[in-house]
Amino acid sequence: MRAVYCEIENSTQIGDEVVIDGDRAHHLQVVRVKKDEEILALNGKGSQFFATISEVTKKEIVLKIISSKFQNLKSNIELAIALPKKDAFEDILKIAVELGVSKIYPLSSEFSQYEYSFNDRVGRLLESALVQSNNLYLPILADQESLGQFLIDNKSPIAYFSAANSEIKLKQSTEEKIIILIGPEGGFSEREESQIIENENVSVIHLPTPILRAPTAVAASVGYLLGLAQ
Amino acid sequence: MRAVYCEIENSTQIGDEVVIDGDRAHHLQVVRVKKDEEILALNGKGSQFFATISEVTKKEIVLKIISSKFQNLKSNIELAIALPKKDAFEDILKIAVELGVSKIYPLSSEFSQYEYSFNDRVGRLLESALVQSNNLYLPILADQESLGQFLIDNKSPIAYFSAANSEIKLKQSTEEKIIILIGPEGGFSEREESQIIENENVSVIHLPTPILRAPTAVAASVGYLLGLAQ
Repeated sequence: MRAVYCEIENSTQIGDEVVIDGDRAHHLQVVRVKKDEEILALNGKGSQFFATISEVTKKEIVLKIISSKFQNLKSNIELAIALPKKDAFEDILKIAVELGVSKIYPLSSEFSQYEYSFNDRVGRLLESALVQSNNLYLPILADQESLGQFLIDNKSPIAYFSAANSEIKLKQSTEEKIIILIGPEGGFSEREESQIIENENVSVIHLPTPILRAPTAVAASVGYLLGLAQ
Repeated sequence: MRAVYCEIENSTQIGDEVVIDGDRAHHLQVVRVKKDEEILALNGKGSQFFATISEVTKKEIVLKIISSKFQNLKSNIELAIALPKKDAFEDILKIAVELGVSKIYPLSSEFSQYEYSFNDRVGRLLESALVQSNNLYLPILADQESLGQFLIDNKSPIAYFSAANSEIKLKQSTEEKIIILIGPEGGFSEREESQIIENENVSVIHLPTPILRAPTAVAASVGYLLGLAQ
C-alpha cells in the first residue's frame, strides 16, 4: 500500500477527512493515485492511519480515515554525528530514519566538513525516508552544536565508535537510551579524542572492519547495538 | 597516505619495482602523484606494501617497495544477497568491501530485480572500495545462482535477516564462518520463505527497525553479527 506523511494529530478520528496539498499532493499526483484507492497515512508521531482517497483535485488530495493504530516509540538509539560532507550527511539522515533512530545531533568538530541548518530540503528528505521505510516516528533533529558542548550537556550513555583499536566495554545496559557517536571522515583530532574518552558517559567500541564511510558506519553501529542487546 | 590496488603477489620483495598502468595509472595521474611520494599498495590478498613512486611517465607509474606487512583474513562473514536493482547492488558491493565481507553470493529469486554478471565496471568498483577502505582482502564474488541452488549447495550456517517478526536464535557460534542472507526489495516469495526457514543451516533474525533498503540492511546485519559476537 502506498504511504504518505501528513501532519495530523494522533487524536484524528475514524471518518475524519484530511487534506493533503503542496509538494505532498504533487508527489501523489505524479504516481497517479486514484479516488477510492487505499493509502497509509503516517504522522511521524507514532500513528498509522489507514485511509481511502475520497477526492483528487489539481491541488489537493483528500483522505478519509478508516482505521488507525498507535505504537509507542520502540527505539532507544540516538545518533550524534560529526558532520561529514553534505551528500554523506543526507545519506545518513535517510539511513537513520530507516533504522528508527529517534534523535540526531549534528556536531561540528575540528575536521567536520559541513555547516548544517534545518531547511525544507532536509524536511522533505526525512519525510520521504519515513514513508519509504514505514517508520512511525520522525526523528528529532537537534540544532548543530560543537562536540565540546554536546559532551558537556549530555547525561546519557554514549557509544563512541572509534576507528582506533580500543577495548572499553559498554558500561551501561542497552535497555536505556544510548547515543551513538561517530566522527567525521578525517576522524576526531587528538584533543577531541581525549575529551571523548575521558567523558564518564562514554564507552569506546572498535568495529573490526576496514575503514567505513560515515553512512556505512551509522548503519553498522546501529546493527552492532541491536546485536549486543541480544 | 594515498593507496593503490595492484595485482602483485604476497611474495613481492623489498626493493622490487612494480609497474602500474592503464586505468589505475590514469587515476593516480589525475590526483597528481609525484616522484618520491609515498604510497600504499594493496594487493587484495592480505598484503600492504609501503612504497615510493620511482617514476611517473605518461602511461605508467613505477613503485619501489620499501616494506610490507601481511595479515591473515580476519572476517568470517559472507553475504548472500537476492539481487536488488543495479544501483543498490553496486552500493552493496562497496559497503561489503568496507565491512570486510569475504565472499558475496549474488542470488536470483522470484522478486529479484537484476541479472548480474561480472564485468570491468564491477571489478573497478571493488578495487576503488578496497583502496578507500584500506581493506586488505578483495572479496570473492561468486557467480549468480538461484536461491534454491544456493541453499542446496551451502553447508555453512546462514543468518537470514527477515522483515517478518521471527524469534529463532542463532544456533551456531559466531566464531565460525557465517553467511548473511538478505532478500530482494520485495522480499522473498512465500514459497521461498518456507524453503529458507526449513533449511537446517538457517537461523532467522528480525531487526527491530522500520523497512530497510538493501544496502542499509547489509551494513546493519554485519554490525548485528559483530555485536552478537561480543
